[in-house]
Amino acid sequence: MARKSMRAEIVGAALEQFHIRGYNAAGVKDITDAAGTPKGSFYNHFDSKEALAVVALEHYGAGLRMEDLADGEVEPLTRLRRHFEFLRDETVRHGFTRGCLIGNFGAEIADRSDVIRTAVHQSFQQWTALIAATLTEARRAGSVRPDLDPEATARFLLGAWEGTLVVARADRSASAFDSFFTVAFGTLLVRGDEHTGT
Amino acid sequence: MARKSMRAEIVGAALEQFHIRGYNAAGVKDITDAAGTPKGSFYNHFDSKEALAVVALEHYGAGLRMEDLADGEVEPLTRLRRHFEFLRDETVRHGFTRGCLIGNFGAEIADRSDVIRTAVHQSFQQWTALIAATLTEARRAGSVRPDLDPEATARFLLGAWEGTLVVARADRSASAFDSFFTVAFGTLLVRGDEHTGT
Repeated sequence: MARKSMRAEIVGAALEQFHIRGYNAAGVKDITDAAGTPKGSFYNHFDSKEALAVVALEHYGAGLRMEDLADGEVEPLTRLRRHFEFLRDETVRHGFTRGCLIGNFGAEIADRSDVIRTAVHQSFQQWTALIAATLTEARRAGSVRPDLDPEATARFLLGAWEGTLVVARADRSASAFDSFFTVAFGTLLVRGDEHTGT
Repeated sequence: MARKSMRAEIVGAALEQFHIRGYNAAGVKDITDAAGTPKGSFYNHFDSKEALAVVALEHYGAGLRMEDLADGEVEPLTRLRRHFEFLRDETVRHGFTRGCLIGNFGAEIADRSDVIRTAVHQSFQQWTALIAATLTEARRAGSVRPDLDPEATARFLLGAWEGTLVVARADRSASAFDSFFTVAFGTLLVRGDEHTGT
């Protein structure tokens, strides 16, 4: 029980340290210090920082509320928009820092660690599938343009979201978020003649 | 003359090391080793690794052929597409690694270094302005949907490109690139009724 709790504390601290500092800048000692555990205890719980990063990424993914994308009670386009609004609000709350841990690992470390690259790849795939299912439903409901390819558009939209986070952090402003919502929901997903200018 | 050449060698090596390893993982010694210069010479040329990163980013930007976006001899949508195709080919050539140094710095280090964040922000701004000008020209020529907001769409498209690179690297495949070109040029920029399915 005590061991389990120490492991959970390390994972929570790692998630936060990786998110704030990045993978390479967050050392094992930074993580165990933040967790309030002795550095020596780390390797009782994890084989490597790399292995911890994969667990931290799973925990991060569980906090993205991806399940909201599958909530049949809410109109598909509305829940897609709310999903990105929730993620935007998280970044705004942190003063336009941190962004998405999946994308950060993808940019910083995926080239150099096959273990982390695979975890990032799988996270993006799961996320893309949920967005694609939402878009398929929206197309069936006639609320997006009928020529939309849900799979390709989902992949595109997730890429657009990840890049938007990077630009918003560089700008320290919401203007990239504003463009994302305006263009994704006001242009990309609707026919030209349906555009209402909102 | 000799000093200038050593400085240029350090900048070239830094660009490559930052691109391959990331900012934090590329130490000053990695950079001077790659440049074939003594580590001690580094601080004759640069105040800090941070200052070197800004210069490396300028050199990187100069290699992106952004000037092609302003080439009035080529139809605007064609040159926009070619611009992204050139960048895609660079990443494919490196086995779906490296991506965009501007975005990588944005994801890894912009939160923690105001100097680098400002350089990333300015690079994105210049790039966005060139894409927006190209889209304005395309709209005037009637080759994109008339309701397109060039400025917001340029910012969105650049974000989409940056995120697409991260996904393509995680996938080690071209499928994110394929989605980018299909959705950006086949859906986003054209009216639903103009879509030809290509």
